[in-house]
Amino acid sequence: MDKPQIGVIGMAVMGKNLALNIESRGYTVAIYNRTGSKTEEVVKEHRDKHLVPSYTIEDFVASLEKPRRILMMVKAGAGTDAVIKELLPLLDKGDILIDGGNTFFKDTMRRNAELDKSGINFIGMGTSGGELGALQGPSLMPGGQKEAYDLVAPILEQIAAKAPDGAPCVTYIGENGAGHYVKMVHNGIEYGDMELIAESYNILRNVLGLSVDEIAKIFADWNKGELESYLIEITAEILTRQDDLGTGKPIVDVILDAAGNKGTGKWSSQEALEVGVNQSLITESVYARYISAMKEERVEASKVLTGPKPEFTGDKEAVIEQVRRALYFSKIMSYAQGFEQMLFAAKHYDWDLDYGKIASIWRAGCIIRAQFLQKITDAYDQDAHLQNLLLNPYFTDIAKNYQDSVRDIVALSVKNGIPAPAFSAAISYYDSYRAEVLPANIIQAQRDYFGAHTYERTDRPGIFHYTWYEEQ
Amino acid sequence: MDKPQIGVIGMAVMGKNLALNIESRGYTVAIYNRTGSKTEEVVKEHRDKHLVPSYTIEDFVASLEKPRRILMMVKAGAGTDAVIKELLPLLDKGDILIDGGNTFFKDTMRRNAELDKSGINFIGMGTSGGELGALQGPSLMPGGQKEAYDLVAPILEQIAAKAPDGAPCVTYIGENGAGHYVKMVHNGIEYGDMELIAESYNILRNVLGLSVDEIAKIFADWNKGELESYLIEITAEILTRQDDLGTGKPIVDVILDAAGNKGTGKWSSQEALEVGVNQSLITESVYARYISAMKEERVEASKVLTGPKPEFTGDKEAVIEQVRRALYFSKIMSYAQGFEQMLFAAKHYDWDLDYGKIASIWRAGCIIRAQFLQKITDAYDQDAHLQNLLLNPYFTDIAKNYQDSVRDIVALSVKNGIPAPAFSAAISYYDSYRAEVLPANIIQAQRDYFGAHTYERTDRPGIFHYTWYEEQ
Repeated sequence: MDKPQIGVIGMAVMGKNLALNIESRGYTVAIYNRTGSKTEEVVKEHRDKHLVPSYTIEDFVASLEKPRRILMMVKAGAGTDAVIKELLPLLDKGDILIDGGNTFFKDTMRRNAELDKSGINFIGMGTSGGELGALQGPSLMPGGQKEAYDLVAPILEQIAAKAPDGAPCVTYIGENGAGHYVKMVHNGIEYGDMELIAESYNILRNVLGLSVDEIAKIFADWNKGELESYLIEITAEILTRQDDLGTGKPIVDVILDAAGNKGTGKWSSQEALEVGVNQSLITESVYARYISAMKEERVEASKVLTGPKPEFTGDKEAVIEQVRRALYFSKIMSYAQGFEQMLFAAKHYDWDLDYGKIASIWRAGCIIRAQFLQKITDAYDQDAHLQNLLLNPYFTDIAKNYQDSVRDIVALSVKNGIPAPAFSAAISYYDSYRAEVLPANIIQAQRDYFGAHTYERTDRPGIFHYTWYEEQ
Repeated sequence: MDKPQIGVIGMAVMGKNLALNIESRGYTVAIYNRTGSKTEEVVKEHRDKHLVPSYTIEDFVASLEKPRRILMMVKAGAGTDAVIKELLPLLDKGDILIDGGNTFFKDTMRRNAELDKSGINFIGMGTSGGELGALQGPSLMPGGQKEAYDLVAPILEQIAAKAPDGAPCVTYIGENGAGHYVKMVHNGIEYGDMELIAESYNILRNVLGLSVDEIAKIFADWNKGELESYLIEITAEILTRQDDLGTGKPIVDVILDAAGNKGTGKWSSQEALEVGVNQSLITESVYARYISAMKEERVEASKVLTGPKPEFTGDKEAVIEQVRRALYFSKIMSYAQGFEQMLFAAKHYDWDLDYGKIASIWRAGCIIRAQFLQKITDAYDQDAHLQNLLLNPYFTDIAKNYQDSVRDIVALSVKNGIPAPAFSAAISYYDSYRAEVLPANIIQAQRDYFGAHTYERTDRPGIFHYTWYEEQ
């Protein structure tokens, strides 16, 4: 066998699958895991593959072609720092370390700066697509030294998913933490997409009173149109499945309504707050998970707090179409927020992001893959400096034509006592964004009244303070 | 004059006014400012007062009675660290340093732990009420060593605002950063209160088409009932004022609708996300300020993005009453979220918070002071372990009686294209919190499908994974 052109540290499912993916493109891959038995297992399972196992980190590093290319797929956080500490004395100037984990971008910024002092290149790479994506083709979001990226680009382009036009779903995102930042926004958007689907399901089920079967067919139908996406597809699929423990119920009816989270949606919202941009739809989606997790408290509250009984007497088919439109409209608002967040972040952290490229590498491989992302790619192709997606004619037009539906659906949900926080955030955002005048003049007047915070005027430049009361 | 019983560092308006407030209660107060001319000015303006100026920090510290009590009113952040560094070699074990600034609570936790090593007590004290409050009686939220608090309590109780029942608006909040945490939540709630008032104004003005004068009267009227509060009162007052630059318009009509912020609302939302609790109303209020600040972008967007023209033909008086009810209902949701956040934070940071006491010290002196806070105080008097305000009969009852109004007002706003993000968040929260079942089962199924994240079941304990597709 050749000397391995790349090595992978961490043989949990994501690391193993990425190693196998790379190997399948004709590379020899060094593999290493802190617990050697895991490495042994992988080798045993794949005897015919060009995998070179090592059982000490020294052997692993020594086995690699130079400059060394090392992909770490280890638990984000302290685990990553521990591996870097072990590796550092063994590496040479010009080697390339890639962290493919779900790492907080500020950790990546710190590590990139620290390793740069020793001449080690550090790439923080967002990896989306789950286990199957890792094996067959993920969407990859690498950030770090551009010259280091160029040295791994041929491998990454081969293992990445391919968009419908054949382009690989990987691109150089930007310096230091930019890749992990963009992955974080991707995950926030994923939270939003999932919450919108959940709210749509809830309205169909609990306002219209449709069965799980009927809703499965609706989602399958939606997946044939402009909503076509991986998440709509798997939702349709999920809704057709029966309980595997034999209760005879649809599986969704026995799954507890308490959503977990791994923190990336939370980071995304905290960061939107940090850079000063409105990301209400994703944030409501994070909050919706939090409140869902308070299951026992909700059950108690449901016994005390009253609300309307959902009832519906109108045209069900018409409302189903309204829900579809509301979903597409709201999805656009969520992406408009996410992309504007990246624009603010680029300024804040001094990155040069290519928004069209980012949309294009989300077209396949990742959880939010969708036909829709081609529309975003196109929008930035038409104007690379687009301030907000809503200002692109395609999206302006959808907003124009679908807003009545989302208004009706929000009103319908609210009147029927069915929570629709993400739909509500979508229309609030739209109406705020397109408001020439907002009532923030009242807020500025209050702030000037109680805190002498001053205000600007509509009719002349400058900073003003009003004498609201006799100063003491 | 006596040896000063307390000293104040920082002679900007807040520090000066607190020093004068303390002096007015019969104490001799040492004062110091980095720039001596400021100290001179204060002494000149108040020759008859028991103020002892120092022009070096050494003299200032030497002038104080032991154990020394020092209140810092300096710019939060690096400024605070710089002053502490200068003070540290001059202080003795048992001295008490109080930071009365708007400090991020994690900085207070760090400083408290660091100073504790030298036996110096460090109290992080939230101070609300603005300049006038500082002079006449603020609401104070001190956290740190309990034994240190006891040594300054007599002074703090004298300078604090007095609630209608005569109780001083200060109490020991808890260890290390607890005081600044509670102040942060207070400020978040303040953002929410202000946004709800702004949205109410917007509906009255732009859906009902009322004049500023008419709205001023409505707020003045509301201030006589259960909404009675400082912020409603000053809003009524603000709306009566004419432009001081002679345009003949109401002042609010020339104030630019671009709201500023000092970051405490942002912190509050970031922290709610951190401890895992739904704080949607405050977060929407922060986002509303952000989007308001994008004035130019909104003006451009308003030319492209369409929406309904507000029109109203119904009974105006009825809608005014609905807005009032929606405002009170939504305010309750915001405080329910804020108080539940403190409950989560107490667990997260290991504090022993007294929620009833916290509500009681907000009854006067601070920006959110309101009749309403007596209701919250009462609720915790009835049950100190109340999980959520909504479960107290008074609030349950208001929610029951006012929810139709908020549902109508949200629908009315949404149909008319008038953004109401905080009202929408309020009803979404209520309907989520009282939902025995939420559609988070769909989210859990999706997460298990694409990431093998597992789920719980409704009918038996344990962690489950479904075989959605053939594993590779």
